[in-house]
Amino acid sequence: MNDAEEISSGPVAAGEVGLVEARDFVHAQPFTFESGQTLPGFTLRYETYGRLNAARDNTVLVCHALSGDHHCAGIHALTDPKLGWWNNFIGPGKAVDTTRFHVLGANVLGGCQGSTGPSSPNPATGRPFGLAFPFVTIRDMVRAQKLLCDHLGLTALHAVVGGSMGGMQVLQWGIEYPAFVRRLLPLATTAREGAQAIAFNEVGRQAIMQDPEWNHGDYPRGGGPRVGLAVARMMAHITYLSDASMEQKFGRRRAGTADNPAYTFDVQFEVESYLRHQGESFINRFDANSYLYITRALDHFDLPAAYGSLEQAFAPVQAETLCVAFTSDWLFPPEQNREYVLALLRAGKRASYAELAMTLGHDSFLLESGDLYALVRSFLGAPVPS
Amino acid sequence: MNDAEEISSGPVAAGEVGLVEARDFVHAQPFTFESGQTLPGFTLRYETYGRLNAARDNTVLVCHALSGDHHCAGIHALTDPKLGWWNNFIGPGKAVDTTRFHVLGANVLGGCQGSTGPSSPNPATGRPFGLAFPFVTIRDMVRAQKLLCDHLGLTALHAVVGGSMGGMQVLQWGIEYPAFVRRLLPLATTAREGAQAIAFNEVGRQAIMQDPEWNHGDYPRGGGPRVGLAVARMMAHITYLSDASMEQKFGRRRAGTADNPAYTFDVQFEVESYLRHQGESFINRFDANSYLYITRALDHFDLPAAYGSLEQAFAPVQAETLCVAFTSDWLFPPEQNREYVLALLRAGKRASYAELAMTLGHDSFLLESGDLYALVRSFLGAPVPS
Repeated sequence: MNDAEEISSGPVAAGEVGLVEARDFVHAQPFTFESGQTLPGFTLRYETYGRLNAARDNTVLVCHALSGDHHCAGIHALTDPKLGWWNNFIGPGKAVDTTRFHVLGANVLGGCQGSTGPSSPNPATGRPFGLAFPFVTIRDMVRAQKLLCDHLGLTALHAVVGGSMGGMQVLQWGIEYPAFVRRLLPLATTAREGAQAIAFNEVGRQAIMQDPEWNHGDYPRGGGPRVGLAVARMMAHITYLSDASMEQKFGRRRAGTADNPAYTFDVQFEVESYLRHQGESFINRFDANSYLYITRALDHFDLPAAYGSLEQAFAPVQAETLCVAFTSDWLFPPEQNREYVLALLRAGKRASYAELAMTLGHDSFLLESGDLYALVRSFLGAPVPS
Repeated sequence: MNDAEEISSGPVAAGEVGLVEARDFVHAQPFTFESGQTLPGFTLRYETYGRLNAARDNTVLVCHALSGDHHCAGIHALTDPKLGWWNNFIGPGKAVDTTRFHVLGANVLGGCQGSTGPSSPNPATGRPFGLAFPFVTIRDMVRAQKLLCDHLGLTALHAVVGGSMGGMQVLQWGIEYPAFVRRLLPLATTAREGAQAIAFNEVGRQAIMQDPEWNHGDYPRGGGPRVGLAVARMMAHITYLSDASMEQKFGRRRAGTADNPAYTFDVQFEVESYLRHQGESFINRFDANSYLYITRALDHFDLPAAYGSLEQAFAPVQAETLCVAFTSDWLFPPEQNREYVLALLRAGKRASYAELAMTLGHDSFLLESGDLYALVRSFLGAPVPS
């Protein structure tokens, strides 16, 4: 491909946010976590796309899922082709239209992509925090994001959007800062995980913590329990897809050819090769302790328990909510999405529910889908009844 | 409990097979595996309950699943309370009635409960075979069982019964030895795994093989990759249950009490404690290399591919078949069970299908269930139309 082609059809073409830059918000004041533990300060790495309006109230905050980050759209350099994880949704004229909205994404507190987390240096020792890092909850993540919004001088959020763990943050935003946020768009999420989701997270944690390289969380940056983390990721990845989508994508197709004898423990099926690749690429970009902290935040999130009931949890909500669930999602299945939407309605809130027949499973919220684009676009663009 | 009570209501009471003894069948002749690899001989550990009739044709062969063994019913000693894995089905007057049938269960070839497998001593080295053990297929397991039947002088099998991997053996029996077996009773099984089931098996194998203690399969008997095997088992165990049954059994109930602080990576939820126990008890009774071999046998099993089509696979079948599937089984879901029953019918065979609305998931075939008992009892007892 020559340069002209790259510019006309590549990631910096019209309709794309193009080159973007991550920035750091340094909050240099003490922060008390929900656990009661404190840090003298923290950093959140974030990106923005589009322009903040004069009223400073046109920001769409995008909250990422377990393994996501602040890099939601665009590319960091022409030499680095890695597009942001929601690039298909965010850009000029896209479902999250950057000609109308100022889009903000931040790596969560406790993360490992530039925000302060267990792999950050502990000022007390100069080495990574490891297990000395405070426990993080979804509410802690949201409170840190609010401090970033204040730092940016935002007067309100046009919307908070996110799938999976991002959706939990969306719900918590509506409860915690009701006057600050106008629209809530949670996708493929839950007000509390069930036993099966906790169980899968726990197996992942055990794979990490039983790896001798974990060493009670004390390992050098870039080192640590790579084997355990890869196994955790491979397993979790199965839960993000659906049986039908795996069948369609891989079925029982064999990997390799005649070089690959039929009787071996090496890769035999394409699905095995795909999963091994998922595991290997993950360990090069994610910190194992962050994985422990963030999955614990997922497991702890329990709106009915935290507020007495879902209706009580949602009592302060002022925003309008659109919940989108996916028929093939068996990690946070439609019934768990419906459960909290019904509670919002019982609490007298403005809430709608859309269930999309998409086959990819939990990760459907990341997919190209005209139906989903249209839902997001119309929900973000529609005037809010007062 | 005093002795009298123990005798009247315990495992040796009326209606129970009571004390049983395992025996070894030593096949002292060369055996060629489907892979072309050979062994100079092998041992199968087996148990029998009930009496063989004069015609030697009243045996019900019970085939076990991945982690099962030959100990299907009864106890080995009054001091060892461990009941056989299908004790609720097998006994005098039970669904598999030992007053009518001679019941035979054998640990599979490649297993680790007394039959020859990767943990058996390799005559060439005196150490465990490890990866020098030949690859095992479902068909190899069945062929070894047939040699055991011949050794016992059986003239026919009244039925072959088994769930999950046991069900695969049942189907293979009907194809491989059509004149020898009168009834096939596969439960919760499939004629070939889909991509998701292969994927879960592969994650388990990776957890084992990436454990440094695995050492390319070369470890002393009783040693080996205990961490990897425990992780594999914990994950697999989730796939044997259902979301609903885990929700009902554990939900989000917390483990422990005030001694258990809310912010820790120790056990927080009952489901975590349950899974850790599953992992820990498994590593004390199962060999990691056997786990690799047997899961590979599961993944390789593919009747349509092996015979050109399911209908061609079933062409030789003479037995009558009853297939039982369970609505909540998402590992080998009802549609995979229906698929092969329909092929049996298209191939002109006598086959019935029952789908039971049981909530435990894949492991439902192990449960107490009046409906399932009645189906099994009537299928085994009904006269076969000629």
